[in-house]
Amino acid sequence: METRSEKRAFLIGRFQPFHKGHLEIVKRILSENDSIIIGIGSAQYSHTVINPFTAGERHLMISRTLEKEHIYNYYLVPIEDVNANSLWVSHVEALTPKFDIVYTNNPLVRRLFMERRYEVRSLPMVNRKEWTGTKIREKMIAGQPWEEDVPDPVVEVIHEIDGISRIRQLSTTDEDITQ
Amino acid sequence: METRSEKRAFLIGRFQPFHKGHLEIVKRILSENDSIIIGIGSAQYSHTVINPFTAGERHLMISRTLEKEHIYNYYLVPIEDVNANSLWVSHVEALTPKFDIVYTNNPLVRRLFMERRYEVRSLPMVNRKEWTGTKIREKMIAGQPWEEDVPDPVVEVIHEIDGISRIRQLSTTDEDITQ
Amino acid sequence: METRSEKRAFLIGRFQPFHKGHLEIVKRILSENDSIIIGIGSAQYSHTVINPFTAGERHLMISRTLEKEHIYNYYLVPIEDVNANSLWVSHVEALTPKFDIVYTNNPLVRRLFMERRYEVRSLPMVNRKEWTGTKIREKMIAGQPWEEDVPDPVVEVIHEIDGISRIRQLSTTDEDITQ
Amino acid sequence: METRSEKRAFLIGRFQPFHKGHLEIVKRILSENDSIIIGIGSAQYSHTVINPFTAGERHLMISRTLEKEHIYNYYLVPIEDVNANSLWVSHVEALTPKFDIVYTNNPLVRRLFMERRYEVRSLPMVNRKEWTGTKIREKMIAGQPWEEDVPDPVVEVIHEIDGISRIRQLSTTDEDITQ
Amino acid sequence: METRSEKRAFLIGRFQPFHKGHLEIVKRILSENDSIIIGIGSAQYSHTVINPFTAGERHLMISRTLEKEHIYNYYLVPIEDVNANSLWVSHVEALTPKFDIVYTNNPLVRRLFMERRYEVRSLPMVNRKEWTGTKIREKMIAGQPWEEDVPDPVVEVIHEIDGISRIRQLSTTDEDITQ
Amino acid sequence: METRSEKRAFLIGRFQPFHKGHLEIVKRILSENDSIIIGIGSAQYSHTVINPFTAGERHLMISRTLEKEHIYNYYLVPIEDVNANSLWVSHVEALTPKFDIVYTNNPLVRRLFMERRYEVRSLPMVNRKEWTGTKIREKMIAGQPWEEDVPDPVVEVIHEIDGISRIRQLSTTDEDITQ
Repeated sequence: METRSEKRAFLIGRFQPFHKGHLEIVKRILSENDSIIIGIGSAQYSHTVINPFTAGERHLMISRTLEKEHIYNYYLVPIEDVNANSLWVSHVEALTPKFDIVYTNNPLVRRLFMERRYEVRSLPMVNRKEWTGTKIREKMIAGQPWEEDVPDPVVEVIHEIDGISRIRQLSTTDEDITQ
Repeated sequence: METRSEKRAFLIGRFQPFHKGHLEIVKRILSENDSIIIGIGSAQYSHTVINPFTAGERHLMISRTLEKEHIYNYYLVPIEDVNANSLWVSHVEALTPKFDIVYTNNPLVRRLFMERRYEVRSLPMVNRKEWTGTKIREKMIAGQPWEEDVPDPVVEVIHEIDGISRIRQLSTTDEDITQ
Repeated sequence: METRSEKRAFLIGRFQPFHKGHLEIVKRILSENDSIIIGIGSAQYSHTVINPFTAGERHLMISRTLEKEHIYNYYLVPIEDVNANSLWVSHVEALTPKFDIVYTNNPLVRRLFMERRYEVRSLPMVNRKEWTGTKIREKMIAGQPWEEDVPDPVVEVIHEIDGISRIRQLSTTDEDITQ
Repeated sequence: METRSEKRAFLIGRFQPFHKGHLEIVKRILSENDSIIIGIGSAQYSHTVINPFTAGERHLMISRTLEKEHIYNYYLVPIEDVNANSLWVSHVEALTPKFDIVYTNNPLVRRLFMERRYEVRSLPMVNRKEWTGTKIREKMIAGQPWEEDVPDPVVEVIHEIDGISRIRQLSTTDEDITQ
Repeated sequence: METRSEKRAFLIGRFQPFHKGHLEIVKRILSENDSIIIGIGSAQYSHTVINPFTAGERHLMISRTLEKEHIYNYYLVPIEDVNANSLWVSHVEALTPKFDIVYTNNPLVRRLFMERRYEVRSLPMVNRKEWTGTKIREKMIAGQPWEEDVPDPVVEVIHEIDGISRIRQLSTTDEDITQ
Repeated sequence: METRSEKRAFLIGRFQPFHKGHLEIVKRILSENDSIIIGIGSAQYSHTVINPFTAGERHLMISRTLEKEHIYNYYLVPIEDVNANSLWVSHVEALTPKFDIVYTNNPLVRRLFMERRYEVRSLPMVNRKEWTGTKIREKMIAGQPWEEDVPDPVVEVIHEIDGISRIRQLSTTDEDITQ
């Protein structure tokens, strides 16, 4: 019995929400690899302006989008943050199938995987002016059109879960006397 | 055996310290309900400028005040923060008797309970210019009179626990070379 | 401003459920002290055969019983277990008003408080043959009468929360192939 | 925009390892539903006799098996245990897409979902004499043939990760003087 | 600047208490290595029959003993347990200076370090009939002489901390009605 | 058997990195005490600009420095942060040998130990303009000479672990589209 020869890549993001830039990156990584592990980072967070959607909602956004694109060679894994950076690579390794290459532009992620002897590659450049989670969330809050920035299945999911109402309500200023 | 017909309300605050605005709110909520659950939020925190008092000290402030007011139809419950917003309503439900209505002005608390199908009502307006925890703590640190802003039993408790000395010491600037 | 002269006692139990032996102990402790803190231990646990009821359900059992008995000089505090025994006394102290005397027969509780220089007293003897949580839970599961062993308000609460059905269901043997 | 009409089921197991009984159950659930969420329970555990495989290794066993079976309408989600049963349903809900029906024979899982108003169904009966995780792990340790009890892709994965050597080593008696 | 050529070993134990067998093992490991890291395992536990002494008390037992033996080439590091075996090696690595060789007879420790490509060696055989933590703790409880089984400085430390009284008290049967 | 008459001091710092100011303080404390416990604070953190080094790396910096200075009467103890200030003193006490005097300029540390009846002394003044962790880390990032500010063994350790490369990489701006 031999070990696998399949080349597997690892990508992590918060995907709040999963947008067209993310989809583009997934496609390019798959053009260089046999399969991709997509880690849904900060999986435990939700219901904040920065992290409005639950891990399950993000799971649905991504899997529906990839199904529509007829992409099946992926592993989708929610990954909760751990308190200590020194444990993070082992935490990822325990939750995912083995992988060979890490794609990231995040200096901490890059450093942690490099110290564990992984090959780390930079993410391809895509339309960063429009396609960032921050900008899309700002549009949602401001009532501006955001639907063009995300794949159609993501629009569907956000409507199903009443996501726009949620992020707008969360963005209002807290005036609670009890706090 | 039937289920209860008593109408029970839920209010959460940090009560750092419990002041006259809080007492006023408790009274108004009780004018509309049979009983009130008072959750002492961020129960695990103490000894900071924002959260100077322990949950036990806040418990004492509230129960002594309500006793003096001859209010007995309340449940007082310390509630530690949980890491994940998605778990928070279940966390509250596990620690408290069942309740029907939530009173809050906090957008996150409102949203989380609404998604769980609770009735959520806004807090009544009280004298917010003077009666906020922030302002009262600032007076304590600056050596200005704060005693008028809290019920008498709270003044007592704060003196018993040497609370003014504590908050002032905590407010000094850290010059520790070892940090 | 002086420190209090009130004598306050501390009692901790799991109260699964709160029974007549517990009520008897509370009364005797109050005959020797001005007030009592009742800690609801292992507060985070519920829905097991050993710990069937949530902290909130136990809170309700105790406060309703004491109200019926016209006992008001008590503080009711849920206390989650901590992982490390060395932190436990500080954990209790942070969650409760200050107290002077600890009542317990538990060797660990006794030791931990003694090492912190508390006065520790043994619990009074009450009808232990019938009034133990274990025996009462066994009766509930076996369909034998248990109502005589607990105060009437506890019977009410257990029926309101469908408690007998819960503990019986939890006591069935797990045959789950997926486990 | 309407809410989904897709019928989605939830199944949780530890899958140590994923065997033919599990596969049979997945197929039967899918014959009654549009899609299935497969929760990999006790996701944080590995390297014990009871839980030899990591969540990532189990993820790989399941997704490779389902791919070979041409089953694509599933969501695979690792689910770490939480300390408190009262939080568990919310924990599952946060990590998964919304679902309608829970399949389980586990009394605790059944009770927790029932109290949250989910429809809960029993698992179909399959060949339980041979197909249980316990029995298969015992065969692995004893050096008896186990390969017939699991789908072929699971055999592959276990060999790739050197799984038999791992479980055998872990089953040896601890004679460590330092413990 | 080159990397170190010093050969450093890692040993972990609970040291409840540190006894003559442990000292013998430390000496033999140092005869094959330049220095030793001694991990005080299960560091968060104390005040139970199995783990009577705190990490700080065990730290003192070990460092006083080694000082008396004129052994200085060691690093003493308390190591709290982590919930997940898959994180344990990274946890140890983060808390300790780098090391080359692991000494253990524990199958789990052996496996976890082997999977991380460490060299693992078995512990030398010493007088195991008398020198085990279990046996020594049993003697302490039964009032039999235990002092011969541990180095003199350990006897001192245990007396200073009133250790015999502690372990005896903890070993009494719990008859607490409140539990 | 008597209790010890040795006078033991406690000092805590993050030591990111251990510099000449820290060494000076250790020496002055030892001139007034028989031994010193050095707590390595925030032990779980590493790989950030503020906390670049692991607890194990800091352990090595300190013990090598003190060995070179022929200082042996110290106890070195990594101390992870705890979530709740009210537990912190007990947490320290559990991890360390007993001590009599605390040296600190940190208002929170001072307050917490004072409330537990410890004697607390201020740290001696040393060359604070140059010798602060913040300033030294800034020099490392900016490529300015920092080696004069730390003891020689610390320079060695930082080079062995490739520390300068690490802190520089971590200080680059995050441009990760996936975040």
